[in-house]
Amino acid sequence: MNIEKGLDKVVKTIRVMITDQPGFLGKLTTAIGSEGGNIGDVRLMRSGLTHNVREITVYVDSDQHLERILQAVGQVDGVTIEEVIDRVQKVHEGGKIAVRSRVELETIGDVRKIYTPGVASICRQIQKQPELAQRYTAISNSVAIITNGTAILGLGDIGPVAGMPVMEGKSVLFDKLVGISGIPILLDSKDPSQIVETICRIAPTFGAIKLEDIAAPDCFEIERRLVERLDMPIMHDDQHGTAVVVLAALLNVTRFTSTRLQNATVGIIGLGAAGTGIAKLLMAYGIKQVLGTDLSAAAMAMHEENGGVATDLVGLMERSPIVVATTGCPGLIKPEMVQPGQVILALSNPDAEIKPQQALEAGASFAADGKSINNALAFPGIFRGALNARACRINNRMLIAAAKVIAQYAEDGELVPGILNAEVHTAVADAVAQAARVSGAVKHQL
Amino acid sequence: MNIEKGLDKVVKTIRVMITDQPGFLGKLTTAIGSEGGNIGDVRLMRSGLTHNVREITVYVDSDQHLERILQAVGQVDGVTIEEVIDRVQKVHEGGKIAVRSRVELETIGDVRKIYTPGVASICRQIQKQPELAQRYTAISNSVAIITNGTAILGLGDIGPVAGMPVMEGKSVLFDKLVGISGIPILLDSKDPSQIVETICRIAPTFGAIKLEDIAAPDCFEIERRLVERLDMPIMHDDQHGTAVVVLAALLNVTRFTSTRLQNATVGIIGLGAAGTGIAKLLMAYGIKQVLGTDLSAAAMAMHEENGGVATDLVGLMERSPIVVATTGCPGLIKPEMVQPGQVILALSNPDAEIKPQQALEAGASFAADGKSINNALAFPGIFRGALNARACRINNRMLIAAAKVIAQYAEDGELVPGILNAEVHTAVADAVAQAARVSGAVKHQL
Repeated sequence: MNIEKGLDKVVKTIRVMITDQPGFLGKLTTAIGSEGGNIGDVRLMRSGLTHNVREITVYVDSDQHLERILQAVGQVDGVTIEEVIDRVQKVHEGGKIAVRSRVELETIGDVRKIYTPGVASICRQIQKQPELAQRYTAISNSVAIITNGTAILGLGDIGPVAGMPVMEGKSVLFDKLVGISGIPILLDSKDPSQIVETICRIAPTFGAIKLEDIAAPDCFEIERRLVERLDMPIMHDDQHGTAVVVLAALLNVTRFTSTRLQNATVGIIGLGAAGTGIAKLLMAYGIKQVLGTDLSAAAMAMHEENGGVATDLVGLMERSPIVVATTGCPGLIKPEMVQPGQVILALSNPDAEIKPQQALEAGASFAADGKSINNALAFPGIFRGALNARACRINNRMLIAAAKVIAQYAEDGELVPGILNAEVHTAVADAVAQAARVSGAVKHQL
Repeated sequence: MNIEKGLDKVVKTIRVMITDQPGFLGKLTTAIGSEGGNIGDVRLMRSGLTHNVREITVYVDSDQHLERILQAVGQVDGVTIEEVIDRVQKVHEGGKIAVRSRVELETIGDVRKIYTPGVASICRQIQKQPELAQRYTAISNSVAIITNGTAILGLGDIGPVAGMPVMEGKSVLFDKLVGISGIPILLDSKDPSQIVETICRIAPTFGAIKLEDIAAPDCFEIERRLVERLDMPIMHDDQHGTAVVVLAALLNVTRFTSTRLQNATVGIIGLGAAGTGIAKLLMAYGIKQVLGTDLSAAAMAMHEENGGVATDLVGLMERSPIVVATTGCPGLIKPEMVQPGQVILALSNPDAEIKPQQALEAGASFAADGKSINNALAFPGIFRGALNARACRINNRMLIAAAKVIAQYAEDGELVPGILNAEVHTAVADAVAQAARVSGAVKHQL
């Protein structure tokens, strides 16, 4: 259901020795491409007199697929395979994050400042004036990344520990993109009440809470109850982070196609966490007619409660000039269902509900899949902005502000910008903080 | 009750311009000392032609005390006060810790390795073989530092948020001394059952759990129930970290005084977290007669349940050649209670139950206060060793092994080594890991 999901691919790095003459790299990459391998980074590792050593990262479907590619590469004249490296394993070894000191500890004087006796005066100041925790602790720069492991990527309920590499990945993105301390918390529970209680009890530790990869429908109840109880920014990323990026993409799609988004009918196929989050944000943005369909009657009922219109797949495809699919079912949308001029975002990863090329051939005016719609575009700036503004919640105005900024930063012809564009995250943070202020979602200032 | 406690002092840094001639620094420090100021670091900041600028850290009792010192300093010829800096506040600003990425994030290839699609294969490997979480996540290098804020330093029940600066201080020590990720968790609860439940539900996140500054008697029940339920190293530092350092100190005291510790009668005054932890570890070490006294009848009863002998203060002082006091009551031990040749560790901070000089004058053969008995000597190496050995608990053999190593590293005439001696922590970790292995406290190896 989640569109950021797990591109079920294997990443390997092939280290080759290759003749240093024009054309040989071309032959090599052609061989990889001919067997259907996607090429990532190509790095020159060593430059010799007659030969170079290069490392080429390839994305393959399976180990068998890799074998076929290696055979094809092996047959290229002037190319010798030196090694196949699993860089992915390497990068995850020892974990991807660490808690580090921001202060020196070199003399006993340092100890006396950061620890006893010096620390006592700081504690006492915070006790007297609790807002000082903002200034003198790491709390206000920390976001808990909380999962119970029930919907990790496209992998489903694999448990919280197996989900930890994803939580650490989010923490890396937080640190590198916006300087937030993202603290994974793995919950050993599937009971919504237990989960809510546990999070409320540890909440003083954090400036904000990011719920992550918790399965629908529990994720809705958990988020709602937490928002009711805690006076801090809380966001289930699979719902709202995804929705922000989809709204950004749709703002650009409709700009390209010169339609007015708010007047369009949008159909959402799949009403899990992502689909429901998208539907709600689009309605909040002002789209009056949001059709929705799902195999679950409960999901359909909730969609209607939220103000949407429930229908079936065929009806939805007939009536929606814009379609967003987040079902996890490859090939669900048949070419014959596509209407002339329709806009189709088929976002399931690794394989879309309909391939963009297929949709266009069937008459769509615009089609995209989920590869570029990454919620890492949204969550870092949203949380940075919410923390900067000392927001007490994350509301729709903040999410819509984020979407508009993301849309603006897309390069010509692209739906959304790349996630490593630092300017985007700063701009999102500023827009979100501003929206928090004007919408009254901020705490009393110090 | 806790001997590591909060030396209720104010730390300030005085920045002075001082004539660059022999004798002037002496006059300055004498002036500070004459008003009872303790001097910490003296740093040369700038060297001019005729004058130097130095920053002198002083520990004072109060702002009034600082005023008197500043007046005394101001009257020294050739010295001009430039500024009084609160370096303690400065060092705590923005918090003392941060979660940082251990990996690069520069290209989209990096994103695809640390996040989707690459991360999916790591998740799946851990799902199939859970022990791989040791290798591919940060869990096995992470220790939760958990408090509910009910006994922060000597400050008492100031709440978890006001206690955060202490938790961050522990995290700094973990990082700098042994490279562990110490993750503060602030609990909004005073109910032992709720606390146990909450910790059990978030336990998969961590390799070990350090309970911190939780008041007695709840700390005993909470630790006991967690140890029963969780198959990982768990230690309430106020009890056991402190006990290890006290045992180390006593090993050296008895070496100096040529008594055999195991045959001695030891009296523990104050049976809170620290006193009870000390009593238990001393009994585990083989001391047969451990007297104990406390104002609380329940604490006395627990001491007897643990195998100790309950008595009153006067009786304890009469019968114990070695006395350890952790009451938090300055001046509790009167000179007339001291027996000839007695060893007295009066550990309450900032003011001891009896000043060492006073105890010696009253006939004690050896006396010390709590300034050097810092449990930061013990906990970093204990947890490092437990994690290195993949221990499933922290038992008395591991604690005793730590105490012996700490004792060995003390310099001649000192009870324990300094906490910034990196060798100590490495040696403690090795000894603890070894003790975990020989005592069967380790998990099945990968």
